Amino acid sequence: MEQRIIDELALPQTTETEKRLAQQMQFIAEIDKLKQVLRMTLLTDGSRRENDAEHSWHLAAMAVVLHEYAVEPVDLQRVLKMAVIHDLIEIYAGDTFAFDTQGNEDKAAREAAAADKLFSLLPAEQGAELRALWEEFDRMDSADSLFAASLDRLQPFMHNVLTGGHTWKLGRVCAAQVYARMEPIRRGIPDVWPWVDSQIKACIAQGLIAAD
Amino acid sequence: MEQRIIDELALPQTTETEKRLAQQMQFIAEIDKLKQVLRMTLLTDGSRRENDAEHSWHLAAMAVVLHEYAVEPVDLQRVLKMAVIHDLIEIYAGDTFAFDTQGNEDKAAREAAAADKLFSLLPAEQGAELRALWEEFDRMDSADSLFAASLDRLQPFMHNVLTGGHTWKLGRVCAAQVYARMEPIRRGIPDVWPWVDSQIKACIAQGLIAAD
Repeated sequence: MEQRIIDELALPQTTETEKRLAQQMQFIAEIDKLKQVLRMTLLTDGSRRENDAEHSWHLAAMAVVLHEYAVEPVDLQRVLKMAVIHDLIEIYAGDTFAFDTQGNEDKAAREAAAADKLFSLLPAEQGAELRALWEEFDRMDSADSLFAASLDRLQPFMHNVLTGGHTWKLGRVCAAQVYARMEPIRRGIPDVWPWVDSQIKACIAQGLIAAD
Repeated sequence: MEQRIIDELALPQTTETEKRLAQQMQFIAEIDKLKQVLRMTLLTDGSRRENDAEHSWHLAAMAVVLHEYAVEPVDLQRVLKMAVIHDLIEIYAGDTFAFDTQGNEDKAAREAAAADKLFSLLPAEQGAELRALWEEFDRMDSADSLFAASLDRLQPFMHNVLTGGHTWKLGRVCAAQVYARMEPIRRGIPDVWPWVDSQIKACIAQGLIAAD
């Protein structure tokens, strides 16, 4: 599969620009695989599971619409880059279900190895930039990454509300777990928190989330 | 369907922030439908048709990787916004196959009506901003929109190269049509043009594109 892509996209590369562009096009072709990484989340109409490319796009669109709520002003360009690339490593590491304790134990090691493999397809300085952005996203320790990570919680939360609590039921999740998972929203987009809190309470009342 | 979303996401709205956020969350839920708008393009492994959300994400990722090639410096934040929103109107207007002459005749009217419907879900000034961005993308008359539109040609082009010319065969497309369709690349990302031109020639030689 990878060899096929390399063969068809490769052209004689003599100049530095040709070599650089060839690496970048290989990366662009390789990340097409993100469209086949399935998440546990369903589309809002419940028809099928969502994939990581769709999820990443939705996150970017949410950043465009909701950045006014970030607790500190954010650099929307950096947030959009993070939204676009934050799940790329799942092409090799797979999607780890948020409520899967065991799967989350070796998540960091699997994802670091995946990042080594994926970002090295790019010219060195560009791969390093994107990898640093991904790591920042994961740490949630800057205004941009806390905001992006808040959206990464809010998006599947909304899908759960609209699909009868699909992944909450799948994970037999209780209220304390949902509150812990949504914590970045409280810190990152506090004006959105009352909406999330009310939704959680409504979902507990409906039995979609187990009371503690 | 739309009513269901409205019911489940609506909460008591008393403050201005609550009313504004409710509109924005309705929009964010509505655009989930982009994941179900199928394009003619196949994924690079040929396994199934691509949808508009996946395509829009791929475009944004390409903008991150390739913006250095824009003929004039671009504002990457604006380009990423365009990539994310440029096909939203297809939720109501449907995807129009690039090589379908008849479908392209009433495309503008269908898409304008769709934009009226979709962007009015948002608070007025935000809807107007995104609509203006979409219109700019369509006109290709600024550095940002010419670059974004170039990627919108390059992405399905690459998919065609990797899937045996799938949509070229579907549209019984000849070389002149492909060259016409790829023209924005020549103007918008001229350093990428030699790569595209060589690929077209190789595809003609392989019979994936009909010689004129």
